[in-house]
Amino acid sequence: MFPQDIEVIKVDGTKERFNGKKLEESLRRSGADSLVASEVVAHVGKELVNGITTSDIYRHAFSVLRNKQKMASARYSLRRSLLALGPTGFPFEKFIGEMFKRMGFSVLLDQMVQGKCASHEMDIVSWNGEKLIMVEAKYHHEQAYKSDLKVALYVKARFDDFQDGSFSYGNRTKLDEGWLITNTKFTEKAIHYAQCSGVKLVGWNYPERGNLHDLIATAGIHPITCLTTLSFGEKQTLMEQGIVLCEDFIAQKAKLKALGWGDEQIEAVAAESILLCST
Amino acid sequence: MFPQDIEVIKVDGTKERFNGKKLEESLRRSGADSLVASEVVAHVGKELVNGITTSDIYRHAFSVLRNKQKMASARYSLRRSLLALGPTGFPFEKFIGEMFKRMGFSVLLDQMVQGKCASHEMDIVSWNGEKLIMVEAKYHHEQAYKSDLKVALYVKARFDDFQDGSFSYGNRTKLDEGWLITNTKFTEKAIHYAQCSGVKLVGWNYPERGNLHDLIATAGIHPITCLTTLSFGEKQTLMEQGIVLCEDFIAQKAKLKALGWGDEQIEAVAAESILLCST
Repeated sequence: MFPQDIEVIKVDGTKERFNGKKLEESLRRSGADSLVASEVVAHVGKELVNGITTSDIYRHAFSVLRNKQKMASARYSLRRSLLALGPTGFPFEKFIGEMFKRMGFSVLLDQMVQGKCASHEMDIVSWNGEKLIMVEAKYHHEQAYKSDLKVALYVKARFDDFQDGSFSYGNRTKLDEGWLITNTKFTEKAIHYAQCSGVKLVGWNYPERGNLHDLIATAGIHPITCLTTLSFGEKQTLMEQGIVLCEDFIAQKAKLKALGWGDEQIEAVAAESILLCST
Repeated sequence: MFPQDIEVIKVDGTKERFNGKKLEESLRRSGADSLVASEVVAHVGKELVNGITTSDIYRHAFSVLRNKQKMASARYSLRRSLLALGPTGFPFEKFIGEMFKRMGFSVLLDQMVQGKCASHEMDIVSWNGEKLIMVEAKYHHEQAYKSDLKVALYVKARFDDFQDGSFSYGNRTKLDEGWLITNTKFTEKAIHYAQCSGVKLVGWNYPERGNLHDLIATAGIHPITCLTTLSFGEKQTLMEQGIVLCEDFIAQKAKLKALGWGDEQIEAVAAESILLCST
């Protein structure tokens, strides 16, 4: 894992062989969990050169740790914010719709789409010049709740029912991709089935690239539920008004005023929105 | 609806034109509901001949009514007995399995069946020399609960996943039919989808011929829950022992004795089983 026989220079000027274990222990003492600590050591170890000082190593290690923890903490916070988009599934659908819009798609929510054998309520229909994507969005309030094989199966049958259909979304007449998006995870069986049968799954930590947090980061959006200056009830009110993005809060000050919010509160929340949501 | 100008002979020997309304009213006074009363009048009216006496007409009408009510009452009782096969779905699956056996099929319950993209838990696999049928059994405790489009969709995707499969049940290597059986009803959308996509649905009152009560009547079986000499708890105990047919009760006296039942109770229940369940 490390370059062999790297000599590092200690504070007193003496030399010694690099000791990854000692570095890992000091990272753990500073609060990193064992997985992150060993990742940081591995990362730093790969960039060692002969004659580096221990201070340089520790400075480098702690800056890598800060970045890793910041990303882990942002991801953790996003996961919680998505779970808070309840209790109904609609704010999550709207959030996903906004995500597609930011990625350059036209979007319609809650469409009845006629298939060969049934009409189906599609949560999100999104298209650009090259692709027509239909999306089933599964919101779960509990992180532990996984979308299972039965969900993947009925979504597959639904997309099959659209296979011979002719649509009219922009210049797209055929369904290109059927997606099942959830804010939590999928069971192993659902993943295996979907990979084999051609249903595209997007969930928490799945797939490795292009998963839900990757797409949200690409789109550059932030759920309104991430704001700490709003109470639970205030977030609910905003979501009922169709405001699910931090970014929307900033844009809709007038609407909030009409809802009876005071200037001071609006500015406080807007300030947090700008701070948290424009990163 | 009636032969024109039929003259009937009254008790006092005088003649008058047949009056369906009067007959219907007397049937309703005797307890028939309006639908059944008008059905009986229609049935009797079609068989009228000139010179028939009013007594003959009434005798005929009431015998038709008795048959109709008996069938309606038996069907009503069967529906309730099927609902009582809860609280889990397993007794219903076992009951359906027994139904297939009586219709000459070999039957396996709760099989993991490997499809192209997933292994699926099939409630009932049944086959004879000519057909391999796989069945998803949906038990609902409430008559009002209907199996909907999503159920039909995932069942369809599951059967699709078996389409290219090679099996080994008797001499059958290919899946011939995929059935979705429920003890209640299906939504209109589920019915339309299934008809169009080739999933066979069997439920309460659906389809018109070959529905669940028709199949049960053909198989000549009766759910244990139809017995009035058993308490709710006793029925539960028997179902936990895998006894779901009236007919099984008669056959399993020794097992019941081993469970601590007294001779007198066993004989009382067996007597009712023979009376009710051997019709």
